[in-house]
Amino acid sequence: MDSNHGQAKDAGKHGLGDVKALVFDVFGTVVDWRSSVSADLAAFGQRKGIEADWVAFADAWRAGYVPGMDRVREGARPWANIDVLHRERLDVLLDEFGIEGLDEAEKDYLNRAWHRLSGWPDTVPGLTRLKQRYILSTFSNGSVPCLIGMARHAGLPWDAIYSADVVRHFKPDPRIYRGVIGFLGLHPHEVMLVAAHNGDLRHGRSHGMRTAYVNRPTEYGPKQSKDRAAESDWDVVVSSMTELADRLC
Amino acid sequence: MDSNHGQAKDAGKHGLGDVKALVFDVFGTVVDWRSSVSADLAAFGQRKGIEADWVAFADAWRAGYVPGMDRVREGARPWANIDVLHRERLDVLLDEFGIEGLDEAEKDYLNRAWHRLSGWPDTVPGLTRLKQRYILSTFSNGSVPCLIGMARHAGLPWDAIYSADVVRHFKPDPRIYRGVIGFLGLHPHEVMLVAAHNGDLRHGRSHGMRTAYVNRPTEYGPKQSKDRAAESDWDVVVSSMTELADRLC
Repeated sequence: MDSNHGQAKDAGKHGLGDVKALVFDVFGTVVDWRSSVSADLAAFGQRKGIEADWVAFADAWRAGYVPGMDRVREGARPWANIDVLHRERLDVLLDEFGIEGLDEAEKDYLNRAWHRLSGWPDTVPGLTRLKQRYILSTFSNGSVPCLIGMARHAGLPWDAIYSADVVRHFKPDPRIYRGVIGFLGLHPHEVMLVAAHNGDLRHGRSHGMRTAYVNRPTEYGPKQSKDRAAESDWDVVVSSMTELADRLC
Repeated sequence: MDSNHGQAKDAGKHGLGDVKALVFDVFGTVVDWRSSVSADLAAFGQRKGIEADWVAFADAWRAGYVPGMDRVREGARPWANIDVLHRERLDVLLDEFGIEGLDEAEKDYLNRAWHRLSGWPDTVPGLTRLKQRYILSTFSNGSVPCLIGMARHAGLPWDAIYSADVVRHFKPDPRIYRGVIGFLGLHPHEVMLVAAHNGDLRHGRSHGMRTAYVNRPTEYGPKQSKDRAAESDWDVVVSSMTELADRLC
């Protein structure tokens, strides 16, 4: 890993000392959706006497995320937030997994498993330290209700909750980058995007944001095939939020 | 004061039990801008050896608030947030009060007095209790940087920070009402607007929101002439955030 100092110098005339706000990709970067959703589903299943491979269910649910957003991105359907997309996918998967007899309240409860995600072990300690020096906001394709619910569930100390919902366009639509930087009243180089996904950071950098890669090589489980390491000279590359705090605070 | 129950029944088929989120007017309702700004200015003046009637200065500053927004509302100028409007007014008032010799950093510091407002004595205890049951968001014409700074300064436990900045229109533009209700994923009757201003509540009610009036008869000082009492059958009428918590929790 190159030194932070060297990377900051490479980033141009503006060093990391100008950064005033950190905005976070959430699913995978901040929270461990795979463990959280599968455990949430398993607990529900146990209460209801339903057996299933709940890890496979969580993976299959998440596999519908990008295709679901793509139909909105491409204009094939009007704006629909992630709660709507998750629910549509849930209905398909309950059928595919042969799970029957759930009422509307139970399906709604299951769909809100995505509002009950937990942080990685380093998340809350790291964010708590980072908040002492920086403004912290979500920067997510999650819905506002999902992100608020999750913050309450996991104790995430956000200053603000911004997401695709606020501009009614999913990342990487430019309106979310320009919008959130604008809400914060900052220049792009004063905002650092924190993400476990190289693609997220490429888009952030294209808008002039500073970039922090957090390595989460098991977001998709032990067989994860992508985003197993930084693929560019991101301003900071770390393995945890506590390491990010070590580097920035 | 009528009972909460009776007022809720009058509000239509949806009672207050449906309320899931409370959104707050901030200046005057949540924070005591007059005491905060005048004390902040006085402390600055003392450090710099500048004498002035800082309470009169704060009142004169605030008196430019509505006219400043009105020029944006009427389309006489493009979108400008409250930090811009406060700064323009500050420059005029420094001249009017004969205060000279401040550099840019000092003027910027003074302008951020509006980011350093303190809650009324009941604010933090009340919001802290209300947060246990409800989602809490700002619903303000303040800027996002102002509201985030103020939350940090005053310890305001918001779940989210929404304001005119996010839709680039000041209240009472319908886009902020529809926008924030939409971000929260709620129906209008599930959102209660909390304000110390009858006008704010009239607009909120016109969008189907529930309404809570908080009496702040000294927001503008001992000679306050308006908003000294509830002027309609608001769903809840209280004198403090702790009383609001008593009524709703």
